[in-house]
Amino acid sequence: MGLHLDWATPAEWAERVGANPLALLSDHAHCELKAAASAQAMVAKNGQHGELAQALSAVAIEELEHFRQVHELLLERGGRLAPQETNPYAEALLTRSAATRSRRFLDRLLVAELIEARSLERFVLLARHLADPELAELYRSLMASEAGHQALFARLARSLYPADEVERRRGELRALEADVIAGLPFDYRVHSGLAGGFPDAVSRSPE
Amino acid sequence: MGLHLDWATPAEWAERVGANPLALLSDHAHCELKAAASAQAMVAKNGQHGELAQALSAVAIEELEHFRQVHELLLERGGRLAPQETNPYAEALLTRSAATRSRRFLDRLLVAELIEARSLERFVLLARHLADPELAELYRSLMASEAGHQALFARLARSLYPADEVERRRGELRALEADVIAGLPFDYRVHSGLAGGFPDAVSRSPE
Repeated sequence: MGLHLDWATPAEWAERVGANPLALLSDHAHCELKAAASAQAMVAKNGQHGELAQALSAVAIEELEHFRQVHELLLERGGRLAPQETNPYAEALLTRSAATRSRRFLDRLLVAELIEARSLERFVLLARHLADPELAELYRSLMASEAGHQALFARLARSLYPADEVERRRGELRALEADVIAGLPFDYRVHSGLAGGFPDAVSRSPE
Repeated sequence: MGLHLDWATPAEWAERVGANPLALLSDHAHCELKAAASAQAMVAKNGQHGELAQALSAVAIEELEHFRQVHELLLERGGRLAPQETNPYAEALLTRSAATRSRRFLDRLLVAELIEARSLERFVLLARHLADPELAELYRSLMASEAGHQALFARLARSLYPADEVERRRGELRALEADVIAGLPFDYRVHSGLAGGFPDAVSRSPE
């Protein structure tokens, strides 16, 4: 089911990001809100496709249910949702794809597919490498849904555009996505990168 | 439970709007999407209030479930979601309230409360006066939810702002809402007005 990604996140990313679970959960909750809003915007703008509208409104509900699940865990642990921050990952994908795109909606579908694929990759790493069993279980429980959303965006793209165009453009955007995420600095966020290394590398050097 | 509105929609509005059920359902579906997006934007921007984030994310899910219900009925009847149009009702409320507002978020809550109150008034009229029993039942089934959302926005406003300020501002915005909706032309939409009368008035005059 998995989409090949052009840059693989090392397992250490998951270990490191787990050091600040409240920041990770808050960022994750915001990601779910953004994913829901993005699916709804596609419905509002392309709702003449009845199946697309039904499928993506169901996706939006699932993302909001995940928001509630993540947010409840955040509250239980004494945290709260941080103020909304810019999302350099998604914004760079949308901005940089715009320079070369011919079909705006095909790009939206393929960017959504890629974000779901990257999120799935991250959730798999978090499920495997987080020391906190409750958090690891959360990410395990969300994996199937991300995979389902990724497959849906791929199916919608294929149903609306010629197969060769979808394949070609997906290859371009996959390379762009790898370049974007590898170029982001590390942060306690779902879509952070590793540019500049880990912030506390000094503390891990031998004494 | 109902919030008093400063302008009452006449029953004839519901009879007339029922003449184009596909247009009404499409507009209604778009309204549910917009209501969900608006609730989610409040969560994204004011999510530090844990209870607000939980309550409004639940509202957003309900609105999306209503979208799906209305959209399914639209498809069953051979219709489809029309392209997204501007929403002169909500836009005028937000634009014209901005000129006098002091607290942006209080206004957002009170405008949301007013839109829910107006929607409830319209659903009650549609439930009572539509000749189409399936549509009348749809609007009957949605009334309790609108009333619940209206009460929630009122409760959130009272929990975050001084009672006298909430009351005073609600009075100002209620007058504004009445002015906005009464000034809109008739259309086959949930929040249309009666300025200029009904479009097919000629056909109802005695021969």
